[in-house]
Parts: sequence; structure tokens; C-alpha cells
Amino acid sequence: MRPSGRDLNEMRPISIETNVTKHAEGSCLIKVGDTHVLCTATLEERVPPFVKGSGLGWVTAEYGMLPRSTNSRMRREATQGKQGGRTVEIQRLIGRSLRAGVDRVAMGERQITIDCDVIQADGGTRCASITGGWVALRLAVNKLMKAGDIISDPLISPVAAVSCGIYAGQPVLDLDYPEDSAAGVDGNFVMLGNGQMIETQMSAEGATYSRDQMNQLLDLADKGIAELVAAQEAACK
Amino acid sequence: MRPSGRDLNEMRPISIETNVTKHAEGSCLIKVGDTHVLCTATLEERVPPFVKGSGLGWVTAEYGMLPRSTNSRMRREATQGKQGGRTVEIQRLIGRSLRAGVDRVAMGERQITIDCDVIQADGGTRCASITGGWVALRLAVNKLMKAGDIISDPLISPVAAVSCGIYAGQPVLDLDYPEDSAAGVDGNFVMLGNGQMIETQMSAEGATYSRDQMNQLLDLADKGIAELVAAQEAACK
Amino acid sequence: MRPSGRDLNEMRPISIETNVTKHAEGSCLIKVGDTHVLCTATLEERVPPFVKGSGLGWVTAEYGMLPRSTNSRMRREATQGKQGGRTVEIQRLIGRSLRAGVDRVAMGERQITIDCDVIQADGGTRCASITGGWVALRLAVNKLMKAGDIISDPLISPVAAVSCGIYAGQPVLDLDYPEDSAAGVDGNFVMLGNGQMIETQMSAEGATYSRDQMNQLLDLADKGIAELVAAQEAACK
Amino acid sequence: MRPSGRDLNEMRPISIETNVTKHAEGSCLIKVGDTHVLCTATLEERVPPFVKGSGLGWVTAEYGMLPRSTNSRMRREATQGKQGGRTVEIQRLIGRSLRAGVDRVAMGERQITIDCDVIQADGGTRCASITGGWVALRLAVNKLMKAGDIISDPLISPVAAVSCGIYAGQPVLDLDYPEDSAAGVDGNFVMLGNGQMIETQMSAEGATYSRDQMNQLLDLADKGIAELVAAQEAACK
Amino acid sequence: MRPSGRDLNEMRPISIETNVTKHAEGSCLIKVGDTHVLCTATLEERVPPFVKGSGLGWVTAEYGMLPRSTNSRMRREATQGKQGGRTVEIQRLIGRSLRAGVDRVAMGERQITIDCDVIQADGGTRCASITGGWVALRLAVNKLMKAGDIISDPLISPVAAVSCGIYAGQPVLDLDYPEDSAAGVDGNFVMLGNGQMIETQMSAEGATYSRDQMNQLLDLADKGIAELVAAQEAACK
Amino acid sequence: MRPSGRDLNEMRPISIETNVTKHAEGSCLIKVGDTHVLCTATLEERVPPFVKGSGLGWVTAEYGMLPRSTNSRMRREATQGKQGGRTVEIQRLIGRSLRAGVDRVAMGERQITIDCDVIQADGGTRCASITGGWVALRLAVNKLMKAGDIISDPLISPVAAVSCGIYAGQPVLDLDYPEDSAAGVDGNFVMLGNGQMIETQMSAEGATYSRDQMNQLLDLADKGIAELVAAQEAACK
Repeated sequence: MRPSGRDLNEMRPISIETNVTKHAEGSCLIKVGDTHVLCTATLEERVPPFVKGSGLGWVTAEYGMLPRSTNSRMRREATQGKQGGRTVEIQRLIGRSLRAGVDRVAMGERQITIDCDVIQADGGTRCASITGGWVALRLAVNKLMKAGDIISDPLISPVAAVSCGIYAGQPVLDLDYPEDSAAGVDGNFVMLGNGQMIETQMSAEGATYSRDQMNQLLDLADKGIAELVAAQEAACK
Repeated sequence: MRPSGRDLNEMRPISIETNVTKHAEGSCLIKVGDTHVLCTATLEERVPPFVKGSGLGWVTAEYGMLPRSTNSRMRREATQGKQGGRTVEIQRLIGRSLRAGVDRVAMGERQITIDCDVIQADGGTRCASITGGWVALRLAVNKLMKAGDIISDPLISPVAAVSCGIYAGQPVLDLDYPEDSAAGVDGNFVMLGNGQMIETQMSAEGATYSRDQMNQLLDLADKGIAELVAAQEAACK
Repeated sequence: MRPSGRDLNEMRPISIETNVTKHAEGSCLIKVGDTHVLCTATLEERVPPFVKGSGLGWVTAEYGMLPRSTNSRMRREATQGKQGGRTVEIQRLIGRSLRAGVDRVAMGERQITIDCDVIQADGGTRCASITGGWVALRLAVNKLMKAGDIISDPLISPVAAVSCGIYAGQPVLDLDYPEDSAAGVDGNFVMLGNGQMIETQMSAEGATYSRDQMNQLLDLADKGIAELVAAQEAACK
Repeated sequence: MRPSGRDLNEMRPISIETNVTKHAEGSCLIKVGDTHVLCTATLEERVPPFVKGSGLGWVTAEYGMLPRSTNSRMRREATQGKQGGRTVEIQRLIGRSLRAGVDRVAMGERQITIDCDVIQADGGTRCASITGGWVALRLAVNKLMKAGDIISDPLISPVAAVSCGIYAGQPVLDLDYPEDSAAGVDGNFVMLGNGQMIETQMSAEGATYSRDQMNQLLDLADKGIAELVAAQEAACK
Repeated sequence: MRPSGRDLNEMRPISIETNVTKHAEGSCLIKVGDTHVLCTATLEERVPPFVKGSGLGWVTAEYGMLPRSTNSRMRREATQGKQGGRTVEIQRLIGRSLRAGVDRVAMGERQITIDCDVIQADGGTRCASITGGWVALRLAVNKLMKAGDIISDPLISPVAAVSCGIYAGQPVLDLDYPEDSAAGVDGNFVMLGNGQMIETQMSAEGATYSRDQMNQLLDLADKGIAELVAAQEAACK
Repeated sequence: MRPSGRDLNEMRPISIETNVTKHAEGSCLIKVGDTHVLCTATLEERVPPFVKGSGLGWVTAEYGMLPRSTNSRMRREATQGKQGGRTVEIQRLIGRSLRAGVDRVAMGERQITIDCDVIQADGGTRCASITGGWVALRLAVNKLMKAGDIISDPLISPVAAVSCGIYAGQPVLDLDYPEDSAAGVDGNFVMLGNGQMIETQMSAEGATYSRDQMNQLLDLADKGIAELVAAQEAACK
């Protein structure tokens, strides 16, 4: 029934290749099916003004899509003179999600910026960005710990994200682009590896939803997150 | 336990005054406690390019805060040369939420723009904007129906929104600003008067949350939405 | 002869409601006929760089119109990426006018920002903004004096403004929108309560004018300003 | 008493050199003392959308200052990403003033754009721009009339402008920069050659003014305008 | 003598992987040493206004760097609200260079946009973009020819580019970043595979240069271009 | 054969008038045929952040065209909200070229900004800007030396620039606008008075070029530069 032939509760193949650029303190190329996102972590000893002097760390994120990551070419945001509303929403979500998995006291007063650049898009780019962004963050923190700049691990548990939705009347896990563009209800779920929830976003896109349907999607999300966390842990070994 | 002395499941006082400006096709001033939002509906016979020729209606929204609606003055977005990320996120949410309550075929190919301008802010401005925005929309649609421009009512059920969160470890309904700025978990819930859900947004802000806690907040939201819908219906009589 | 039936030298009804928002140090909602402007005063202990260290106070103003304050909806300046030329002209005029009524030495090195936001427009919004802006300023200064932060009153005399013009060949006082859009000559007059002039702006809009006609408008302005000053003083009691 | 040694009612030397660039349909370099402005007129057969189809002509103006036209270098507006408030105010004034001297029916549906670029500034640049701008306009219209594209002369009477102010307690004509920066009251007066007034702008800059003082400045302006109009007419011969 | 140990006239290893994204009509990932650029070609049947109706084709290019493609993170141009001067210069150069290798009549009235996004930078990104951009263009044109939309091949000869410079007093081929940042003279040479020149850009960066030195760099460029063209042709087979 | 009737190796008449504005530390109006550029030098004791504390001087340049310097009016960059790509490219070239003629140690830690504003354009504006810009720089440096602020002359040799191209199949010197817009190959050559080269920029515009043709243009440039340097030296006496 799904365009890809997947089962209702089946994720796309997940691959996470680490250390893909020589400059960044941490990096990976995450592929969730045909969605490919390059995630890099940049470590800086300075923090934004509103954090200065607090002794706390800061994690922030930026998101972008290459112009031809999509089926028809998108205008480059740099030529339009600003980031669009969707971009701003997504990068705020990535930053907020990753921070929820960080003990900012243990991290110390420094900043890590996660850049998530979509090389190829096929649905679920924000979820792949969060999942891959955490891997880049993990690798950068490992470097700090190896150097003795951080003593106790500030990363509480892996942060991962997956989308679920109601497609053709059925709850499905990990929407690809054909499903995403036709889904009546669409949700993004960000969780910790320990099962706690960080962010729940569900939206009616044509059809409203009941509490029951919401719970079905949450169950699917639990399954997907577990698989993503396993892939993150394998990649970071 | 709440700074305002309210019960955990108690809304702030709700007041909705209609027809507050002489120019708009529909308008109200909604007050939820000390949060005051002026909502106006503008009817236009033209639609955006991506809707043109579809025969469908379009509802969109814009959101703004007066510079001194807040405790310390905010810079005017017009002088900063752009709307901030938070503004863009909120106005996209308002538009998406209201459209979920509209039968766009019955509405016919025309556009209604809902402007939500915060006169005074004390937490929950986006929820008050959705709730008051629906009243302005209802009044503008009434005018179209009275004029015979629309035959069958395109408004499916009232759209209302409320925030809930975990404050000092307790689930509470309708956060005001002191609660909002200290809450560990914070959610916005948009629903139809018939109980169906339109949008669920929960965020960890310091503390993550479990499925149980999520369900407690959803129960509180059900109660709040019912009271808001009653106020909407009273105002539109 | 006037669309509203008023006499040539008759003002619209004036109402000034004070302390209309809980956050601002001073505020009022001024209504001159159907023109309604919300004016707030924000007190800050810091001053702009060009004033720093001078020991002098600074008063500045910003002006905005809500999108549906007008008969057809105006685009929000924040979405256009800048304030229009008319807005900039008006807010410079408001700031300059109010400063002319302030003893900046007595005020001390602090800044008061007057925000004038038009809720409903029917001609004469810049004049209402100046008149209402002065009331907000007066209330904020009263607060400073009550707290003992300012010893001697820095407000020399009330500042008020009114428009006059030549409509259908006749000099008329306090143009409303139908008159304003058809007037051949149009002037804005800012004065102190003591009769001294602060700003005179007369423009030919189709018809030029003679010195005699100018004097007729100035006589009308004298009458209007006296009524506005009386309303300001009543409101500030 | 004046820094330049001029009499209270004495203009600076006026020089208007015409046809100074080979591309423009009309041009002049106007010098009023050390204030030098290059004015060009560009004729286009298209008009702005709000004029289209009306059969009426349109005259508009733009104003700029070269970065080192002033004593300390000003930032180039093109690098700041926008025209400042003062620039916008001035170019609106120039356009409005010139249009008041034009019979837009006789002009026919075409547009003339007057560019006023300040090469060297020493006070009174907006007045020199209006006065020189009219000469450029006159020359462009002459070309249209010679070509038979316009039959009856659309220029009613020359448009000229001069500043007057109260400097060291005395009313003076044609303020130069040292006077302008120290004047307590400052006015710009735009008039037709036939004595009718187009625009009167008086501002208190530190000192307020009485009706008597205003009349003294108007008398000075009458004298200055007559001299400027004589120079315009000599230049256009 | 070179930091990398290369001979004076030795290129870095060149690798060109084609068809790296599923959406673009042509694409490659070019690696010249540690400089990695993703190049995609987007085919559109529409052309820019200044080409419309001419029957001629148009090739244009855009260039960007991922924020952490460099050793220290660069601010994203989309967040700065504009493309920097260097970016604009480079993308104009890429477009101009590629057009010089295209028979625009044979191409027919359609547009191909080449996006060059730097994944990792180590000097010579503009040259790698031109060289890789031509490969993406070649592949997109092949697709058009296979489909019968273009009959005669519009690509005259491969377009490739290389940098040369005077480093530590010696002329060297294909500067990497450590060389580039220390070179006294620096040139970019764009050529056709048939030996004709398209663009020569030499700049003194600290040291000026003689005609002899220029000729030495041109000789090096000839050698480098031949190797790049061989790699292009191998990749496109 | 040339539209102007000039010989293939003949420059247009060169005129350089110095000290043309009273405010700038150095200035000239350079005319190369009908191309007229006003160049001013502004001296400031502060330097940009990246130079601060180095003890070195900095020379930078800005470039602009008056809207009606061209045959059809160009939109003012200040109203478009940014400098175009061509403007940015040109002003970077001017700055880079002039710096190559400066001993930044001898100059001392101060900044000179060269503004080049095109009053009338007829081809070759960037070359005239460099040539005239150097004269303004020379005059400003003379002032510093006369005042004893600089001891040893930091200007190594005059910097001048000329364009050459292949027009109607022939190499020609100093292209005017009709030639420039029709040339198949077009180059700009910046040199020191001592014969060393600073910048070489050649571009194919329709026709590619051989090494032989390049050498012919370089020979023409040598001749033109010698004449320009003679004019610079005469003007600075």
C-alpha cells in the first residue's frame, strides 16, 4: 500500500558515515532512504551574549537545503536576502531538540554549532538533521573529552527524531516525500534514547485527528526512534 | 501554588468584544487574563497565485506585537527589516489552524486575512490569536452569507487553542507569563469545537516528558478548549 | 458643506483615556473622531550614543499603523522589510515636536520612547499621535517626579497638533479622511499650550496658496490647539 | 554678524550652468554659494501604475549626496542597504514641489524624473535641488515642445525654494551650513514665480517661534525666491 | 619546497564522480586534492527576460560555500541577508566562462543553471567549480540530445580552469590553501580544451609581476588545463 | 575603422582637474573622452578591525554611478537596497589596485578611502576611476607629508589602468562605449608607472583569444599606461 512497498511500521534504510569533512570538529553524512543530510559540528570557545558569564554551554543549529536537493530547483536563500519561514522553524527545532539532550553545566561555557545541509531531499529532512546532528555533536564532545577540556560527559542520552503520519487512512512510520505530500495528518517526534519525549508536533493537513490516532503514531515513533538510536550508537563507536 | 492563585485546571477570565474597528469585515478584541489581542478579518476577492483557478478559498494570518505590549519594550520588527523567527512560526500556525476548520470548497475562491496584533502580552498570545482570529473569521463569513455570496456555511466547527504545561512539577492549564517562563514542559493545543485535534505542539524546556504527562496535559486542554468555544459562541451570537 | 456636517472651525469629538496598558510607564488611547491611536511611553536609563555623557535627556518616537486600521488593508511594514517614507517622516516629526516641549537639562540623561500605533484611521493620525504622545510622556514624567528621580518638571508646556486645510475652497479645521483626500491645501500645525509654534507644514496638493489663506489656517489652528490642550490637561489630572 | 559677512537679507551668489551632461534630456549644475547640486531630467514615455491610463503626466524626483560632499565622509546609502529618512523626506518634497508647478494635463501621459545629486554641500541642498531641478525640467520640456510632442506649455511658473531661519536671534535669508547647524528656527519655503506658495516648512530646533517671527521669515523668502527665479530664467534663455 | 611536497608544475589528484544526486539533470562531485565541490545542472524550458524570444540558450551559475567547508566556520550568507562580494564575483565568472564554451544557437531557447556548492575548501574552489560545472553541463546536454530535444551538440570544447601563482618566488601550478594565502601573485586561467583562452585574471597580492612571469604562469596553466580536460572527458564517457 | 575615427593605438583625450571639492583631503575630476569620474580621498585616523594594531595603513575604494550618467537612466542602488555585483567587483578592483602601489608600512596605521563617482559614462569607467583615484590618493598623501604626519613617501609609483580589446577583429586601445559593447574580447590592465603589472583581466565576450592576441593587447596597454601616467604626473605638480 505504501508507494515504496514498505510495511506500515517500517523505516527506510539508515546509514550514518562519520568524519566526512576534514575541518569540522565532528561530522557525518546521514542517509535515511534518499534523504541525505551533511551534519557538521563547530566548536567555539565563545558563547552568545545571553549566555555569557553563566558558566553554561550552548548548542545551536542552522539548516539549509542545496538549491537542487529537491525535485525542482529552489531559489537559494542567500539570493533572496533571507531565510524562509520554514527554514527558521526547522533550525530552531533542531537547536531546541539537541539542547534537551545536553547537560549544559557539564558542557562548560562554550558553544557548539550544528550545521545541517540537505544534499538530497526525499521527505523527513528535519528528522534526519536532528538524528545526524546529534552524531556530529557526540563526535565533537568526544574530542573535547579526549583532550580533557570536559570531564564528565554532558550528553545525557542520544537525541533522535522521526516523522509519522496518517497516509491513505493508515498510520505509517517514516514518511518519504510522496507520502508526506499526500498525508492528511503529519507528525514529528523527537525523543531521547531513554524513551523520554522532547518535542511532539502533530498537524492536521486536510484531516483532523483523534486522541486514538495520536497514540497510534506515538507507538510507531517509539519503534522508529529505537532503530535510529541503534544506528547512532553504531556510528559513534 | 500558581502565582495567580488559580487552580491547576482553571482558565484565566475570558472576554471577547466584537466589531471593535469600523473598517474590518470582522473583528474582535479578545482578552484572556492580561493577554489582549486585536483580531481583524479582511476579505478580498483575489487569492494567492498558488490557489488561483482552483475554486477553493484561502485563509491566512499575520501576527504582530506592539513594541510595548511586553514588560520591556521590544524593537519594532518594521525597523529591524524583517519579521523574527518566532513571529513567522506563530503566524504560520494561526493560518494553518484556522484553515483546518474551513471547508475551502464552500468558501469559494476568495481570501480572508486574519491580523492578530497583541496589544498587551501576558503569556499565551498565539493561543488567544487563534481563538480570537476564529471569531473575526466567523463574523466576516457571516457577512458573506448574509449578502448571499456564500450559500452553505464553510466553517465546520469553532477553532480554539490553549496552552498547558508542567509548572513546578504539576500539569497546569492556560499558562500566564510567569508560569510560561518557568515551565519545564510547554504545549499548545489547537482543537475543533467537536473535539477533533488540529495541532499538538509540546516542547521540553529543561525537562523532558513521558507519555503519561502528555496525556495529563491533553486532558487539561480538552477542558480549556470547551470553555473557549463557549465564549466564542456567546460572542458571535 | 463638510461631509461630517461640522462647522468650518469645529473639531471632531476628542477623548483621551489614560493608563490603558499595564506595562508602559505612561499610556493613553486618544480618539479624535474615528481616528484612534494608542500611545505608550517607555522609560530607559540608557540614551543613544550621540547623547551619551551630555547630561541631557532624549525623547524619540516611533509610529505604526495596524494593517487593517485603514479602509483597505495595508501591507504590514515588517513583512515589506522596511518602514515606508511616510512612516519615517511622521515619526521624525513626532519626536522633533515632543522634544521642543522638553527641557532636556531638567530631564536628565535618560530616554523616553513614545510609540504611537494607529488602531483606526480617519485622517489626522500624525496630529493625534503628537497630542496623545504628549499625554503618555506627561504620565511617564509624573512617575519619575513622584519617585524623586527628577526634581524640576522638564515639560515646558503641553505639545499638541492639528491639521487644517482648504477644502472645497474653504478653510476648515481638523480634516477627516474624506476631507483630507480631497483638500487642495493641507497643513499640520504643532504648537505649545502657551501659543508658541513648533512646526508648520503646509503643502499644495493641487492648488497653491496665498499668504492670506495661510493666515486663515493659522487662526483655525490656534482654536483647535486650545481645545486639544484642554483635553490633554483634563486627561492628565 | 553672519559668519559669511552677508547682510541679513542677502542671498549667496547663485550660478546655474545648463546642459552639463550629454545623456540627460535636461541638466544643470546649480551653485548657491558652496552648495553645488547636479540636476538631471530623464524623460520616459511610461508612467507609474497609479497614473496609467489617466492621460496625466508625472514628475518625480530622487536625491542623493556623494559620500564626500560633506565635511566628514558619509556612508554611501547603497552600502547601507537603504535610503535614510532624511533622503526620503527630501526627495518626496522635491517631487511634490515640482509637480505643483506643472499642468499635468498639458504634459500628457509621460514621466520626467529629476535626479538631484549633491556634489558639495554647505547648507540648503534641498532648496538648491528644487531650484535647479526646475531648470532641468524646463529644458526637458523645451525639448518636447520643440519636437512637437507637447503643444501647450505645461510649466505654469518657475518653482524655486529658499531656506530662512532665526540665527543668533535674527531672521536671516539663505542659511549656509554654519548658520543652519546653529539656528534656533529653520524654515524651507517653496514658491512659484508668480508669488503663490507651494510648501511651507518651519521647525523649532531649540527655540519655538511666534506668528510675527514667521511673517518676518516669509518676507525674507519672498525676496530670495525673486532672485532665484531671475537666475532660473536667465539660465533657461 | 611546496608545503604539499608537490613539484612546481604538479596538479593535485583530480577525481570527478558523476550522477551523484537523483534530482538534477546532470551532476558531479569534483575533488581537486582536498577541495570538494558538488556541481548540479538544472534544465528549465524558460529563459530570463533579456533572452526571451531570441531563440538563444542561456547558461548561468550560482556558487555557495557550506558554512563549515572552511577551517573556521563562515557565517551562512542566507542569515546575513545577502551574498558577499566574493561570491557574486565567483558566480559571475563561472557563468561567463561556461557560456564561452556554448553555441547558444544550437542550444535553443532554454536555460541551464549550474549550482556549485563547496563541501570542503582547500584553495581553488572557483576553478574546481568551473571544471566540475562543465561536467554537469555536459551531462545535462547529453540528456537533451538523447531525448532529441537538441540535434547538434552545442558544447564547443570542454571548459576548464586552474590557478597558478608565484609562491616563495617560484611560479607554481594549482595553488592549495596554504600556498594561496601566502602567494605574492595569483592568477586564474579559464581555457577551452582546444587551447583558446576564455578568461585571464592575474592579481598582485603584495608583489607586482612582469610580462615574463606572466608568461611562465600561462605555460603552467596550459599543462594543468590539459590534465583537467582529460579528467573531464574520462568522467563523461 | 573605429567609430570615433581614432587610430587603433590612440587614447581618447585625457584631462585631470585637481582639488575640485572643498571638503576632501584630495580630489580630482578625471575625463577620458566622454567618461567623467569624480574621485575624492578621505583620510581617517582609524582603520578597519582586521588592520588594527598592525601598524600598517589601509586604502579602500567605493564606486558609484549617478543614475543618469548613462544613456538610459539606471535605478539608484540606494533605492534597490544593495550594490549590484558589477559595482562590488569594480570597487574591490580599485581598492586592490591602489593598495599595490602603496608601501603600507610607510603609510602608518591610518585609512584613506577613495570614492569614485561616475558623472558621465562612455566606457572605461573602472580604468578612469583607478587612474583618477590614484591622483586623489597622491594629493591626500602630499597633505600628510607636508604636515609631517608621514616622513617617507608611501607611494611607490603611480597606478594607472586602461582597457584594450579586440574590436571588429582588430586589437584597439582604450575602448569607448560603442566599442566596448561590441568587442569580442575585452581586457583591463592595471600597471605601475615603472612598468610592473598589478592586475590583468581578460574576458572572452563571444570570441575566445589566443596567447598572441593577448600579447598584442598587452603592448597596447603599455603605451596607454605611459600616457596616463604622464597626465597623472602633470596634474599632481
